[in-house]
Amino acid sequence: MTFRITQRVPALCAILTSIGMTLPSTGLDAQTAQPLPTAAQTDPKTLSMMQGFPPPADKTIRFTDGSSLKFPNTRWAFSHMRELVPTANVSRGEGPVRALPRAERDLGNVAITTMDGKAITFNDALQLTYTDGILVLHKGQVVYEKYFGEGSPQRPHIAFSVTKSFVGTLASVLVAEGKLDPAAPVTKYVPELKDSAYGDANVRQVMDMTIGVKYSENYSDPNAEIFDYARAGGMVPMGPNYQGPRTFFDFLVKLKKEGEHGNGFFYKTANAEVLAWIVKRASGLSMADLLSQRIWSKLGAEHDAYFMVDSIGTESGGGGLNTTLRDLARFGEMIRNKGKVNGEQIIPAAAIADIEKGGKKEDFEKGGYPLLKGWSYRDMWWISHNEHNAFTARGIYGQTIYIDPKAEMVIVRYASHPMAANGANDPVSLPTYMAVAKTLMK
Amino acid sequence: MTFRITQRVPALCAILTSIGMTLPSTGLDAQTAQPLPTAAQTDPKTLSMMQGFPPPADKTIRFTDGSSLKFPNTRWAFSHMRELVPTANVSRGEGPVRALPRAERDLGNVAITTMDGKAITFNDALQLTYTDGILVLHKGQVVYEKYFGEGSPQRPHIAFSVTKSFVGTLASVLVAEGKLDPAAPVTKYVPELKDSAYGDANVRQVMDMTIGVKYSENYSDPNAEIFDYARAGGMVPMGPNYQGPRTFFDFLVKLKKEGEHGNGFFYKTANAEVLAWIVKRASGLSMADLLSQRIWSKLGAEHDAYFMVDSIGTESGGGGLNTTLRDLARFGEMIRNKGKVNGEQIIPAAAIADIEKGGKKEDFEKGGYPLLKGWSYRDMWWISHNEHNAFTARGIYGQTIYIDPKAEMVIVRYASHPMAANGANDPVSLPTYMAVAKTLMK
Repeated sequence: MTFRITQRVPALCAILTSIGMTLPSTGLDAQTAQPLPTAAQTDPKTLSMMQGFPPPADKTIRFTDGSSLKFPNTRWAFSHMRELVPTANVSRGEGPVRALPRAERDLGNVAITTMDGKAITFNDALQLTYTDGILVLHKGQVVYEKYFGEGSPQRPHIAFSVTKSFVGTLASVLVAEGKLDPAAPVTKYVPELKDSAYGDANVRQVMDMTIGVKYSENYSDPNAEIFDYARAGGMVPMGPNYQGPRTFFDFLVKLKKEGEHGNGFFYKTANAEVLAWIVKRASGLSMADLLSQRIWSKLGAEHDAYFMVDSIGTESGGGGLNTTLRDLARFGEMIRNKGKVNGEQIIPAAAIADIEKGGKKEDFEKGGYPLLKGWSYRDMWWISHNEHNAFTARGIYGQTIYIDPKAEMVIVRYASHPMAANGANDPVSLPTYMAVAKTLMK
Repeated sequence: MTFRITQRVPALCAILTSIGMTLPSTGLDAQTAQPLPTAAQTDPKTLSMMQGFPPPADKTIRFTDGSSLKFPNTRWAFSHMRELVPTANVSRGEGPVRALPRAERDLGNVAITTMDGKAITFNDALQLTYTDGILVLHKGQVVYEKYFGEGSPQRPHIAFSVTKSFVGTLASVLVAEGKLDPAAPVTKYVPELKDSAYGDANVRQVMDMTIGVKYSENYSDPNAEIFDYARAGGMVPMGPNYQGPRTFFDFLVKLKKEGEHGNGFFYKTANAEVLAWIVKRASGLSMADLLSQRIWSKLGAEHDAYFMVDSIGTESGGGGLNTTLRDLARFGEMIRNKGKVNGEQIIPAAAIADIEKGGKKEDFEKGGYPLLKGWSYRDMWWISHNEHNAFTARGIYGQTIYIDPKAEMVIVRYASHPMAANGANDPVSLPTYMAVAKTLMK
């Protein structure tokens, strides 16, 4: 099964592709034009990745030589980021774990019709999306939970751009509390950005990614900003002769304006890093401490989470969060419940309401996502405006929080799809989520 | 207060010294011959280290430029290792936290006479040893707990060579269970070492560090093995032109024999890495998983621990463990109780008995520790054979588990002394521990 993907690809996708990953434009391997190996064929346990002391050379995965970024090594690496790079802890606090009540159902045979008209089952969908772990909550109860490969209830997995929705949520919380002014210029919080693309932007434009910034994700251009972004943030190896910026901050201050702000949604990871910077300045806390204090320590999380950090300990707000799947579900359920956990309001309901109302559809339309017709983007969440008012956090390679208010359902999925862009799995994933929702509503 | 230090210095000390730390042979700064700044003067909070987004350049601490290894930056860095380097998690498991009962006492004015005859108090000792955190258990109850600077009940601190005692304990456990044969050649478990110094050594010799291996800790020799050890293990930056081994395994197989095995105790960190390798092969588990499964998940620990790892995820068995102070205390208390936690035998009593009986004093005498007269070394623990039969785990810069069976006392201390060798703080620390023990026994 292959899909033609035309939508924009987040930054990390491009740089990963540039160092040898499959191109995200087809379902075929970019070099060989052969069908991609299946999830079963690339199971990291079956392939004995990183097994043994030491592992055999051809089963060894490192960050330093770039091998951790190449499929199928990613099937192991996405569950082991902290073993590859420095990280900052997000403490779950000292309180008790909030048990997730269970009412399990066999969803394996739920029938799904993909966007290109194929009839598959839920079980098929898990394979087609290279799922590492998936958990379905219905009315707060676990109705389905399954892991593959290196996926495990105990092991955090990288959330990639799902991270942005955490940063956006925290920004929305600070706005609701009057601690962050969305109408204020970015430079009110980060004067260092005055000569950058963000010098005449306001906070709301950053929150909704309606920023005109020269930030190329064209991986065939060696001068594209994406390369420096990923190297500066420690997300790919810098290489011995690298002379560019060595921290997120140093990267961001150099970004130049291109076009106008407030004139359409253009998904660029740099905006999430800028928002993270703003949020840190407005709160006086690091992203790890802010997330811990305001949310993670109040969810009854089972495990600490963590952020990948750059060389000076700055968390990646664009894609660096790692959590266990169950804790991601707890977060999603709290959002579905408009900021409440066990009836206690842990973040303002207004912060969630602002997310759910969505952004301007006409802005989104300019962003170029043909599979997401009628959607919008608000507070770094993706708002479907579909019949269930579903909204979602999305990260490359299939990372997902999918919240369906009408079905009272939250689906969280971690995955390691060979293709970065969610367009590669949306034709399966989006119909799957709706089919599960309708099954649960019966 | 200065002390003349003549004992051998562990490997990390030497390489740290080589990149700009104070020499461990005097209480004076090596370059300036000025008295070292005090603990109060180098408090990382007072100095605003790593505060701000981003921190000011002169308050920024990185691993990549070596600044995290330099005093006084170490006062911050030793509590933030995972933010600087890749790490492997040691899970506390899913069980409840075992509360540490409290019966606090003010020990601050306990009188101590240092080895060089000075009269000080317990409070003075904490300052003189640059303590980041100290916790005293008496009969299993917390009688004293205090943190300084970046020390915190929630934040793991690097244990340095206290790590070795964990590896030695796990080896002793496997021996007690018949899963590891101390009389067997090392090559039974690690055939790859056959052409190295360890090719004709047995496991017991490794466990007790009576190995004849060419492993220089002479930091004035650019070819000294210590440099490659620390670089191979990712404990110091490799630098752009580094051509040596890039993993612990690759480093160890190249070590050459010097002298004979079984002919005296010579403290060399490489032996702990070899023992870690043996233990992994004998157990089939990584050090992180073995420690978690056999000990950490059974202590009722409050927090996961973690190991620093090399570029292929190999834990440093020589010095890479990080724990919270309270969890280190739980471990020490379990050892004091001969493998029991809350009355349950979690590791064999025989494993602890083998440690407590100690090694050969005549072997130890050859190792050159004038402050530790009459001591021995067994299973990577330091055995005092003093009037209380105290034994201890020791790491550079003051990391300590001190177990006093007669006083039913366990002291754990994390510190960031400017000088690596414990000889720099033993003249204060060892009398302090005995004075506290005698106070508690009254």
